[in-house]
Formats: sequence, structure tokens, C-alpha cells
Amino acid sequence: MPNQIETLDHVFHALADPTRRAVLQQLSRGDASISELAKPHKMALPSFLQHIQVLEESGLVRSKKVGRVRTCKMEPKALSKAEAWIHRQQAIWEGRLDRMEAYLDDLQGKERRRAKTK
Amino acid sequence: MPNQIETLDHVFHALADPTRRAVLQQLSRGDASISELAKPHKMALPSFLQHIQVLEESGLVRSKKVGRVRTCKMEPKALSKAEAWIHRQQAIWEGRLDRMEAYLDDLQGKERRRAKTK
Repeated sequence: MPNQIETLDHVFHALADPTRRAVLQQLSRGDASISELAKPHKMALPSFLQHIQVLEESGLVRSKKVGRVRTCKMEPKALSKAEAWIHRQQAIWEGRLDRMEAYLDDLQGKERRRAKTK
Repeated sequence: MPNQIETLDHVFHALADPTRRAVLQQLSRGDASISELAKPHKMALPSFLQHIQVLEESGLVRSKKVGRVRTCKMEPKALSKAEAWIHRQQAIWEGRLDRMEAYLDDLQGKERRRAKTK
């Protein structure tokens, strides 16, 4: 079982390629076979299969072979982990802005009170 | 100006490394100089500067040199684009589940009505 850091490395790496993002976009609409997924991409099958492998290693996609057809499905959990990480940084950043704003409001308030007592 | 696909490639690539994510985590708490950012990482400065360069190229970080000190700040817009992409796939995926559920409910309803009329 890879740890959180490794998982995020793999997930973000998998998302850093337009072919792999297009595959995920297609799979978010429904499960699909390898040949259905490969169709829109002008790419040799071995190269395309490498992209599928990267997606599987990241946990974003799972595949299952039934007879001669390998079907892929999206695994939204891995995507949620990546989103949660991004969301956390944004929340911290926004929290910092809120604190800065509160501090400036406080300063302005003090300034106003000082002006009144003069 | 890079297009959306290139931007997402760069942003997700920048996020796929634990050192670069740690830098962003630190910057989400507040602006910092290169030496403050480098401190927690056991790494030669040139290697660390390469990470900063990747972050700047992705638009996630901006830096400014005042005198001899280069200060970095987080740019939340690039992060929002990445989050929006992830969020869209999840929404499509969830929409698909909702439609599937509605379809199954519909099927069950028809089944029940058929059983009543028998």
C-alpha cells in the first residue's frame, strides 16, 4: 500500500498529460473498453497502453479483462484525494486573507477611535 | 499565453512532487524568501531552485527580487484551474450515478405496478 505522499505524486503525475486527462474525461461518462478509449487518440496502441498503465498505477483507473475485452472504469477516490489536497491549500490561503482583513479592520477601528478622542 | 491544456499539464506536473507541494503548503501560510523556503529541505540550492522554477513556470508561484532577497508568493488562480478540472470530472461521474439510480428506481416502480395489475 503506497503512502499518501506517493499516492499524490502518482495521481498528479497521471493528471499532467492531456491524453490521460481525456481518458479520465471519457471514463467519467461511463466504463469503456481499451479500444473505445484508444479510438479518439492518434497514437500507436503500445504508447496508449502505457498511458493506461500510468492511470492504473495512480489508482485513478481500474481495468478488468472479460474474455478478450479489457474494460476500464474510473476510481473517483484517488481524484478526491488530489482535490482535497488542493482544497486544503486554498482554505489556508483564504484563511490568511481573512485574518489579514480582520487585522486591517481592527487597525482602521483603532485609528477612528483615536481620531474621535483627539 | 499558454493555452488551457498546457497550463493544466504544467500545474499538475508541478504538483506531482513532494518538495514542490511542501513549498506551496508553506506559501499558502504566507509569502517567504527563497532561503526560508529552502530551509526545511535537505537539498543543494541549485536543485531547490529548479523546483521553484517549475512552480513559477506553472503559474502556481510568483517571485520578486527586492535588493538581494527573492520573495515568493502563491498564486491561487492556477490551483483553482486544477481543482475545477477535477471537480468537473467528479460532477459528471456523480451525475452518471444519479441517472443510473433514477433508472433503477423507475424500473422498480414499473415492476411494482405490473405486480399490482396482475
